[in-house]
Amino acid sequence: MAIKVHGSPMSTATMRVAACLIEKDLDFELVPVDMVSGEHKKHPYLSLNPFGQVPAFEDGDLKLFESRAITQYIAHVYADNGYQLILQDPKKMPIMSVWMEVEGQKFEPHASKLTWELGIKPIIGMTTDDDAVKESEVQLSKVLDIYETRLAESKYLGGDSFTLVDLHHIPNIYYLMSTKVKEVFDSRPRVSAWCADILARPAWVKGLEKLQK
Amino acid sequence: MAIKVHGSPMSTATMRVAACLIEKDLDFELVPVDMVSGEHKKHPYLSLNPFGQVPAFEDGDLKLFESRAITQYIAHVYADNGYQLILQDPKKMPIMSVWMEVEGQKFEPHASKLTWELGIKPIIGMTTDDDAVKESEVQLSKVLDIYETRLAESKYLGGDSFTLVDLHHIPNIYYLMSTKVKEVFDSRPRVSAWCADILARPAWVKGLEKLQK
Repeated sequence: MAIKVHGSPMSTATMRVAACLIEKDLDFELVPVDMVSGEHKKHPYLSLNPFGQVPAFEDGDLKLFESRAITQYIAHVYADNGYQLILQDPKKMPIMSVWMEVEGQKFEPHASKLTWELGIKPIIGMTTDDDAVKESEVQLSKVLDIYETRLAESKYLGGDSFTLVDLHHIPNIYYLMSTKVKEVFDSRPRVSAWCADILARPAWVKGLEKLQK
Repeated sequence: MAIKVHGSPMSTATMRVAACLIEKDLDFELVPVDMVSGEHKKHPYLSLNPFGQVPAFEDGDLKLFESRAITQYIAHVYADNGYQLILQDPKKMPIMSVWMEVEGQKFEPHASKLTWELGIKPIIGMTTDDDAVKESEVQLSKVLDIYETRLAESKYLGGDSFTLVDLHHIPNIYYLMSTKVKEVFDSRPRVSAWCADILARPAWVKGLEKLQK
């Protein structure tokens, strides 16, 4: 049975899962969820994701939600397909896991707030909350200072090769590179080079094309 | 070499790691970090956790931070010790992983805010922000509505047995049970029974004793 991703092309979490599937050379059907009419907040969609958010994921009988749980499932179950997104060395995997948590707990809260305020609100005609932007920018800068140091000792955040850790960051960075927050990334040379590198992944470029078709 | 946990008895993240180690019957040394004097924001502690937060973890040469990455390391590497905290069935593990992300992404932001405002600020002589409490209580209630439904179909959040998913919740719930937010848990019968169950885990009780000694 085919893999299905129920989601929206604008959603960073949908983008995250699509990029992961393409890195793994896996074919999938994108099932559009009409967020304008609130389809994600109603049944039957809520049976796929009780939090009423996108994406929801189906692989045969298995139904999952939460983008980072989905990407981990894909990376582990399809370990032999496409690009290897996890470090299997037992000494390196726990370090990758640390930086995976850093993305979810430290980067995501501020980056997603900025993506919402500066990347998405203008598109859907809402007014940006400048105070929220200022606060999130300060917090994100602190995180990126630590990334700058980390990237001096390791080519990628999770280790020496591109992994799920880096992939999880891409969708927010993609949005923020078209906003004034680009400066916060660009002013840190290693972070800036890392952003350019991960945004140039062919799987990411192909994922964007597939979503925006 | 012995396992070391650098942390503070008041910290929910330190508690999370301690409870996990005790569930796994692993001995460890608790190395106190003096947060009052800001030891966690200075070198050499920053070499253990660049974010300047507790805990930091050492198992021989391996140094980790981020409590959820540490517990995952312990649960996987010491799979054969003590209580089995992960579901190894390949159909059940991805579902556990979904609910692990739910804890980190949906429960933790609101629960930790409430723990800080109502559980910790009064102890350290700071003033509670009532607006922040009100907002977080509303958001936490929505999450607990979904937990109430989930717990109708599954005895524990991650599956039929107690796993890391439930364990990750315990420290915030422990604090919140001594605050007015207890009502938000108690008004949902399945959530209330689940809280009573997981707070009564002997490993949790033993962990609290060890931390508070």
